[in-house]
Amino acid sequence: MSTADPGGAPAVKQVGRPRDGSRDVLILEEALAVLAEVGYERLTIDAVAARTGAARATIYRRWPTKAELVLDAVRRLSEGDVDPADLPDTGRLRDDLVAIVLSQSEDELQYRMKIVAGVASLALTEDRRLAQAATVASVGSWTRALEVLLQRAVDRGEYPNVSRDVAPDVSGEAGISSGTAVDVAALAQVVPLMCLARAVTQQPISREFSLQLIDGVLIPAMRGAG
Amino acid sequence: MSTADPGGAPAVKQVGRPRDGSRDVLILEEALAVLAEVGYERLTIDAVAARTGAARATIYRRWPTKAELVLDAVRRLSEGDVDPADLPDTGRLRDDLVAIVLSQSEDELQYRMKIVAGVASLALTEDRRLAQAATVASVGSWTRALEVLLQRAVDRGEYPNVSRDVAPDVSGEAGISSGTAVDVAALAQVVPLMCLARAVTQQPISREFSLQLIDGVLIPAMRGAG
Repeated sequence: MSTADPGGAPAVKQVGRPRDGSRDVLILEEALAVLAEVGYERLTIDAVAARTGAARATIYRRWPTKAELVLDAVRRLSEGDVDPADLPDTGRLRDDLVAIVLSQSEDELQYRMKIVAGVASLALTEDRRLAQAATVASVGSWTRALEVLLQRAVDRGEYPNVSRDVAPDVSGEAGISSGTAVDVAALAQVVPLMCLARAVTQQPISREFSLQLIDGVLIPAMRGAG
Repeated sequence: MSTADPGGAPAVKQVGRPRDGSRDVLILEEALAVLAEVGYERLTIDAVAARTGAARATIYRRWPTKAELVLDAVRRLSEGDVDPADLPDTGRLRDDLVAIVLSQSEDELQYRMKIVAGVASLALTEDRRLAQAATVASVGSWTRALEVLLQRAVDRGEYPNVSRDVAPDVSGEAGISSGTAVDVAALAQVVPLMCLARAVTQQPISREFSLQLIDGVLIPAMRGAG
């Protein structure tokens, strides 16, 4: 349906009206807003069209299905996320973790978590791409950032009991008999996934909750490793 | 619509055909199965009727709305959950935690988590009762059981650095300047909520994942407290 032809010869200019990029962005943003309000199943192209002033046909020309529109919209959320090369680096793990939590907007956090809730039931059925994109958009860069901060603390020897080459124990039954080396990869998921779970089950999420997890779970776990 | 009259005088026998309790149970079980397969939005009374052989009118007489049927079904899931008075008690926290994880059926766990995913988008809209019931059914008794085990270990002095009257730090900005006392209530939520979050975002959940969290997060956190 689309008039764009990405496979065409690069030298040949596209014929017809140029795609209006800013209108695409507006449509994607409004699609996300509708998704956060009512969830995927109740989202309609009509509602998105009404909020953007675009014609339904315009939206369908660009995104032939609702799933494609929502997938594009959710992927767009991940753009402009925290840059792993530009993280707090105070020299002390707890200060780094607190800084990254305080740098997040609670409204933005709630919004992203509502979007995950809005597509969660799709995880049961066909569209795995959407569930995966929502995971990346909601917890992907956050988890990666926390893992960088934790690993940095290990590398500089802030927690001498943590082995510098600790590897998560993923082997079959090994967990039953293994020791208790702290698992940096698992620890990096604690705050993002617990916020996500609370959002999905309608419990409030806040910076205070994240700070509580830093002091009540993450830092003790790093200190108690070894 | 229901012919049952719970407010009636206790001495007066109900008139008409007695409610068929076993058929109710079958309907609730099939409603849960449909919910886990397709989610709340796509669940229809017709589908439940077809799977149970009951007439639609029979179902509607008992549960006037889809929301009421699903609410009853989800609440039923919580019946027969782990009895907090009947938990493993080996005298060693790690063994207790491993025992409770191994006592869970992975299929049952996956099933409950799918049900949470199936009602997650409702958290965005009106029916808070359903989202809450799903939370209780999926992680409620599990979280309570873990909290009992953790608190028992604290009470018997297995982790001498953990204060026996530790209280979660929930005051406004206190998390920013407070120490790092382990938070038993938060720690008890780690495994259930992380499993729930993984299920909702289509990541596999398994006993191995729970065991990994025990050895990589919970036990180190208890050891590093204080």
